[in-house]
Amino acid sequence: MPGGLIDRLIEALRCLPGVGPKSAQRMAFHVLEHDRGGATHLAKTLLESVDTIGRCSQCRTLTELKTCALCASDRREQNLLCIVETPADVLAIENATDYRGLYFVLLGRLSPIDGIGPKELGLDQLAVRLDNGAIDEVILATNPTVEGEATAFYISEMCADRNIRATRIAHGVPIGGELEYTDRSTISHAFSGRRDV
Amino acid sequence: MPGGLIDRLIEALRCLPGVGPKSAQRMAFHVLEHDRGGATHLAKTLLESVDTIGRCSQCRTLTELKTCALCASDRREQNLLCIVETPADVLAIENATDYRGLYFVLLGRLSPIDGIGPKELGLDQLAVRLDNGAIDEVILATNPTVEGEATAFYISEMCADRNIRATRIAHGVPIGGELEYTDRSTISHAFSGRRDV
Repeated sequence: MPGGLIDRLIEALRCLPGVGPKSAQRMAFHVLEHDRGGATHLAKTLLESVDTIGRCSQCRTLTELKTCALCASDRREQNLLCIVETPADVLAIENATDYRGLYFVLLGRLSPIDGIGPKELGLDQLAVRLDNGAIDEVILATNPTVEGEATAFYISEMCADRNIRATRIAHGVPIGGELEYTDRSTISHAFSGRRDV
Repeated sequence: MPGGLIDRLIEALRCLPGVGPKSAQRMAFHVLEHDRGGATHLAKTLLESVDTIGRCSQCRTLTELKTCALCASDRREQNLLCIVETPADVLAIENATDYRGLYFVLLGRLSPIDGIGPKELGLDQLAVRLDNGAIDEVILATNPTVEGEATAFYISEMCADRNIRATRIAHGVPIGGELEYTDRSTISHAFSGRRDV
């Protein structure tokens, strides 16, 4: 039976998402037996990240800079603003599309039951940005969940108040998907969102 | 696009086994968004572990102590020695059986192609221990792979030289398994290892 420190390491590894007791044990023994250099590097990078990574002053995404690389770039279209829930969504859109506008990262979604209101999502900061007149179109790319839809609706109202065009990304049958195995709600969205060929 | 530090954190997380680019990204964003305390704790525990965890002077398992809790215990039968490949195997046996003897952890298996010979597995240390006469039976619990079998055979020869009884754990159809879906090699082992009812 290993002593207390190994048990504490296994327990500490469980702060990572998707890591249960068995995976944590495997990870602990793996790094101790085979990759102590990697473990030390990971520990130092974690500490540095926790210390220095904050939020971008413009788009609220996670970054160690005052203003993230995307917001600071002069190659992005300054009149397009895409609203997403998380920094991972920014990466997904950057990797999949040729969108060249800016982002605004909510780091969450409206969820009154969890105490997450407009203020927690930085919507006051978004309002200031919409007020300054540089944005022509707001693309709502929150997730198609109840809270994500509510958040998109709330922001679309903010846009309507300021006469700014708000668009919602399309929801429908995913590419490679089959109608037969697609859930009712998605098929319903696909039909109501149909377009002329 | 996140700055360099987030990318470095994602890369550093990949030293953990079973963590690919997508999981690493999910872990990095999760701890930065939701669990910085956990990340700091993990980092400190990792550093402490890498610094202080070494090998038990008796059984070679991983421990922060000079002699691990199992070897130091006076409640274990001192005449039984179970040979396993990894510290995780010790845990598995402790959790599953009522074995009350001692362990010897190889931290590997004989694999000349990878430069792992008897010396790397501490078999010289094992020989000294067998020579001192306290051990009556050696239980060979290496894995039933080619290298694990070769290692078990090598150690059984060491025991034979010293007139110490060597036993091998049984290999056969696992409990809950079905013959129809059991591989040939396992069925073959199950037949050759059959016992009177």
